[in-house]
Amino acid sequence: MGSETSLNEILEGINESALRNGNLFFTLFGRSVDINRSVENIYPLNTRSEVINCDEQILMTDKPTDAIRLKKNSSMQLSIDHVSSGKSHAILSCGNTGALMAISLLKLRTIASIKRPSIASIWPNIKGESIVLDLGANIKNDSTSLIENAILGSALAKVLFNMSEPTIGILNVGIEEMKGNENVQKASEVLLKMSSNKQLNYYGFVEGADISNGRTNVVVTDGFTGNIALKTAEGTASMVQSYFKKAFESSILSKLGYFFASLSLKSVRQRLDPRVHNCGIFMGLTAPVVKCHGKSDRLGISYATDIAYSLVQKEVNKKVENILINEI
Amino acid sequence: MGSETSLNEILEGINESALRNGNLFFTLFGRSVDINRSVENIYPLNTRSEVINCDEQILMTDKPTDAIRLKKNSSMQLSIDHVSSGKSHAILSCGNTGALMAISLLKLRTIASIKRPSIASIWPNIKGESIVLDLGANIKNDSTSLIENAILGSALAKVLFNMSEPTIGILNVGIEEMKGNENVQKASEVLLKMSSNKQLNYYGFVEGADISNGRTNVVVTDGFTGNIALKTAEGTASMVQSYFKKAFESSILSKLGYFFASLSLKSVRQRLDPRVHNCGIFMGLTAPVVKCHGKSDRLGISYATDIAYSLVQKEVNKKVENILINEI
Repeated sequence: MGSETSLNEILEGINESALRNGNLFFTLFGRSVDINRSVENIYPLNTRSEVINCDEQILMTDKPTDAIRLKKNSSMQLSIDHVSSGKSHAILSCGNTGALMAISLLKLRTIASIKRPSIASIWPNIKGESIVLDLGANIKNDSTSLIENAILGSALAKVLFNMSEPTIGILNVGIEEMKGNENVQKASEVLLKMSSNKQLNYYGFVEGADISNGRTNVVVTDGFTGNIALKTAEGTASMVQSYFKKAFESSILSKLGYFFASLSLKSVRQRLDPRVHNCGIFMGLTAPVVKCHGKSDRLGISYATDIAYSLVQKEVNKKVENILINEI
Repeated sequence: MGSETSLNEILEGINESALRNGNLFFTLFGRSVDINRSVENIYPLNTRSEVINCDEQILMTDKPTDAIRLKKNSSMQLSIDHVSSGKSHAILSCGNTGALMAISLLKLRTIASIKRPSIASIWPNIKGESIVLDLGANIKNDSTSLIENAILGSALAKVLFNMSEPTIGILNVGIEEMKGNENVQKASEVLLKMSSNKQLNYYGFVEGADISNGRTNVVVTDGFTGNIALKTAEGTASMVQSYFKKAFESSILSKLGYFFASLSLKSVRQRLDPRVHNCGIFMGLTAPVVKCHGKSDRLGISYATDIAYSLVQKEVNKKVENILINEI
């Protein structure tokens, strides 16, 4: 209900994922009259979904505390209840991020020793993909969150990328040991110790450019910096593409060039499409929670649904918890 | 002396700028035997430079406090003395950023009410260019620095871009008023008041993507976030370009396409060349200090020299001080 996209666009998006993932079943929370009217015409969603009616909606402007206290029958609260009671396996939401985090934390609780969940994203780099976290769950910078992010990111990389010892870097203003603020310094010390105990594979400090050159499999930062870095990267990628677009339109020769190269260029556009990467994975909770951008269109929503599906299929939350209990 | 590039590369770089800027004259600080041997063969630099011998060098690993206390005869300290005593107009350095900032602050002092200088950069966006600061002078986040950055950035934009009321945004995790940490909240309140008093033109919070879409003329942030955002943007731009390069090499058709479009594509490469933008302008001091990346090649150094030259020609420091005294 909290999305800024049309209901039909959301339903078409999850339907695309349903087509790719045969055993997906959806419980849809929202105004049942509207949802039923739309779902009716969408196959196979009309055979693989049920609707639970809600009239209350958490707005983008609602404070998380108010969302918890005042909107107990909202689509967000009821869908999280559905997961916490075991009736669904994962939550997918396009709504208010702060409220989603607060309600998930309250109802799903954190795993093992984790105090505060964080938001992870799968980020493209020149070698493949890396996991970057936190992207905005904790905007207060402290060393404990950074350490937890490192542990969670490493565990996620192990499961998602099927790696035994993913490398971890802490994002900093320089790679030298003495650089940065107290929080990154403290976190780095602790991770060095954990690394020498073979609990994880800490690489050291990395810089902003190391995210896209794939220096480490996991990049750890606080929610303020991570959010800004992600959006700066998206903005830059889109700017560079717009430069190329203009260049191709600038002369008859360049238009001809585009014509010949268009197939290859299409693959670049697809690879860089932010909609493929625009969802956040809430890490550190007992069940998968995937947050889509509020303006996600059907393509973005279908990819986010794929990710939620794969988190369930791979039993990521259970496995991350096991890693935390047995290896840390 | 502190550069990681060869001496000859640096001299060729400043010489390129000397060719473009007729009345540039250089005082070169370093080992005079080596410098003289190289300069001899470089025209017009050999007719428009003098050398002051120094044997002491500040290393990239030196702490700023040690650099100040123990290396009084270093090329960095002597060159800054040369400016503070009025013998030169501006400093260009490829050395240790922290040491350069500490020594500049000590010897050149800040203008008007400015407590701590910051590092600004001229950043490309889809509309043209914007000024982003701080890029790493103050990694401790506080609201006073953010406010000072806004004042300095706005004054710099007025002079460099020749604008009467440059717009200012504070980088945040969202554009809504309630978003972000205490520091951005406090700074935003103060800037709103200053804006209603017509002292500057505050736009509000901006997000990471707004840097490259040119939402505001000035983007203000703390040194930790700014440094990471800048390097993330550079890394992303380089990744996207490498994707395009690979796409053009992927088939005979795409190679043909590249052949036809190559002229237009060259202009994109030049526009995105990080060497054009890789220098930092120290803001808030009585004289221009320009910091090149330690690995800058001749092209990067020549552009940074152009910027130092234009800061002097346009009397930027004097004008920024006047704006601070008369308008704030």
